[in-house]
Amino acid sequence: MELKEILKPVEADLVTVEAQLREAARAEFGPLALVIESVIESGGKRMRPAVTLLAGRMYPKNDKHLLRLATSVELLHLATLIHDDLIDAASTRRGSATINSKWDSKSTVLAGDYVWAKAAKIAADVGNTQVLGIFADTVMVIVEGEIKQDYMGSGASTNRDEYFNRIYAKTASLFEGAMRSAAVLGDAPQRHVDALGMYGRKLGSAFQIIDDVLDFVGTQNDLGKPVGNDLRQGVITLPALLYYEKHPAHPTLASVVVKNGHTPQELEQVIQEIRVSPEIEASRLQAQTLAGEAIRELDVLPKSKYRQALVQLAEYVIERKK
Amino acid sequence: MELKEILKPVEADLVTVEAQLREAARAEFGPLALVIESVIESGGKRMRPAVTLLAGRMYPKNDKHLLRLATSVELLHLATLIHDDLIDAASTRRGSATINSKWDSKSTVLAGDYVWAKAAKIAADVGNTQVLGIFADTVMVIVEGEIKQDYMGSGASTNRDEYFNRIYAKTASLFEGAMRSAAVLGDAPQRHVDALGMYGRKLGSAFQIIDDVLDFVGTQNDLGKPVGNDLRQGVITLPALLYYEKHPAHPTLASVVVKNGHTPQELEQVIQEIRVSPEIEASRLQAQTLAGEAIRELDVLPKSKYRQALVQLAEYVIERKK
Repeated sequence: MELKEILKPVEADLVTVEAQLREAARAEFGPLALVIESVIESGGKRMRPAVTLLAGRMYPKNDKHLLRLATSVELLHLATLIHDDLIDAASTRRGSATINSKWDSKSTVLAGDYVWAKAAKIAADVGNTQVLGIFADTVMVIVEGEIKQDYMGSGASTNRDEYFNRIYAKTASLFEGAMRSAAVLGDAPQRHVDALGMYGRKLGSAFQIIDDVLDFVGTQNDLGKPVGNDLRQGVITLPALLYYEKHPAHPTLASVVVKNGHTPQELEQVIQEIRVSPEIEASRLQAQTLAGEAIRELDVLPKSKYRQALVQLAEYVIERKK
Repeated sequence: MELKEILKPVEADLVTVEAQLREAARAEFGPLALVIESVIESGGKRMRPAVTLLAGRMYPKNDKHLLRLATSVELLHLATLIHDDLIDAASTRRGSATINSKWDSKSTVLAGDYVWAKAAKIAADVGNTQVLGIFADTVMVIVEGEIKQDYMGSGASTNRDEYFNRIYAKTASLFEGAMRSAAVLGDAPQRHVDALGMYGRKLGSAFQIIDDVLDFVGTQNDLGKPVGNDLRQGVITLPALLYYEKHPAHPTLASVVVKNGHTPQELEQVIQEIRVSPEIEASRLQAQTLAGEAIRELDVLPKSKYRQALVQLAEYVIERKK
C-alpha cells in the first residue's frame, strides 16, 4: 500500500501541518529564514506528524491544538537533524546540501537552536503542560543518546542492548513521545495513552532498523548518500552488528569497531559482504517482530479508520524500499 | 552595598535554587553529568534567578513554582553560555576551562542542548503555558541575535541601534522574560507585569554595558580573560563604538571593523587608548541612565522589601567593579 493512501484519514491535517511548518520558517532575519526553509523543504516523509495525527484524531476532543502539536513534533525532529548533520559533518542529507555545508558551524548550531525554540514555542501554544513535559523529556533522551554514542565511540555498539538503546534514543523516543502527547491532549484514558506510546516506541524502532538495513541494501540514488554510509562513519548498525557476531575475527569489522586503520578497499569489501549476507534478512526479521508487537498494542483501542491506518503504517514501515 | 546584602529578602530562595541546579546536573550518563556540574559550579552571580525571585516574591500566590522558574531561567542562561563558548571558541570563562576546551565540539553542542532541554523540562513543571511561551520567545530572541551578529560580522555593530539591539537579544531579553514570567506566575496585574518586564529589560541592558566597560577597564584577574577581549574577537562594544565615532579614521579600529589586517601591537595600542578615553565614562553614563529608568519603572508597584531590593540592585549593577 502506498504511504499516501494509508495516511488518507489525516490527509487534510497534513496539508495544514505543512503550511504551519512553512509559517514557522518565517524568522525575522532573512538569511536565517532561508536556512530554515531549506531544511523544511528537504522534505522527508513527515512520519512523525502523521503518527501524531493518527493517534490524536481518535479523540474527538482534539482540535487545532493537535495540528500545532504535530507541527511542533516535526520541527523538533528537524532541529535534531540540523545538529546531527553538524555532528556527523554530513555534507548531504536526502541528496540536498545540509545546512552546515552552506553555513559555518556556529550558525548551524544556532539555526538548530532556533528551530528547537520554535518547536518549544508551538508546543507551548498547545497549552498543555503535561505535553510540554513529554516534549522536554524526549529531547533529553535524544540528546543524551547522542552524547553517549559520541562519547563511547562505536565500540560500545557491538552489543545488541546498546544498539536498541541507541535507536530508542535516536528515533523511537520521539515517535513514543509524540503519540503519548497526542493521546494526552485528547484526554484519552491512561491505557490508551500507554498503548499508543508503546506502539510509537516499537514502530519507531522498526523504522530505524529498516533505515539501517536500507543503508546497506539501498541505492546511492535512493539514499542520497553512499551505500554503507553508517559503517563508513564508524557506526555499527544492526546488519553489521549481526554480521560481526557471526564473524568476530573479521579484520575489517574489528578495525572499524576499534577505529583502527583499514584500507578503503577493505571497507568496500566488507560493505559488499554484509549487503549479500543473511544478516540483512535477520535484521528485517527483527523489524517485522517489532512491527507485529506494535500492531498488537493497538488491540485496546476501539476500531476506527485511524487505528486501521496505524496497522497499515506498521506494515508499510517494514516493507518500504526507501 | 554588597550584592549579598541586597539579595537578603530572597537569600533562602537562592539557596534552594542552587540545590535545584545541582539536582538538575544529575544526568543519567556520568560524563555528561560531570560536564553540566562544572558549568553550574563555574558560578556567576546568579543575577537572573535573583531578579526572578525578587519580582515573583511580591505576589503571595507564588510558591514553589517560582523557585523552579528561577532555576529554569539560570539553566537557560547556562545553556546559552555553553553554545556561546563554542561559538566564540573561548577557552576559558570566568577563569575556568570552558566545556569545549575539554570536550570536542560535538559533545559541547549536545551538552548545551541537554541543559536547554532540562531548562524547558523544569519550566514545563511550573505548569503555566504563558510562562512557557515567554521562555520559548526569549530563546528565539537570544538565538536570532547571535545569528545576526555572526552573520553580519562586527561591521554592522558600529551603529548604536545595532549595539542596543544586540545587547537586548544577548542579555536584556532574558532579564525581561524572567521577570515577566515571575509576575505572570503570581497573577500580577498586567501593569505590574509590564513594569517588571521593562525594569528587567533596562536593568539587563545596563548590566551588559557595564560588562562591556569592565572588559576594557577590569583586570585580567577579575575578568578571567584578557583585557579588551571583545575587541580582540572583533566585537565592537559601546566604549569602542563611541571611541570610533569620535575617531572615525582610526586605522586600527577601522581594520577591526572590516576584519582587515592589523598587527597585535596596534591592537594593544588601541585597547590602551580606549581604557583611558572619556568614552569609558560616557558608556557608564548610558548604563546609569538605563538603571535610573529601570528604577522609575518600579513606581507603579507597592512598596515592599522586594521593590527596595530591585532599586538597590539597579544601583549595584552600575557600580560593580567585576
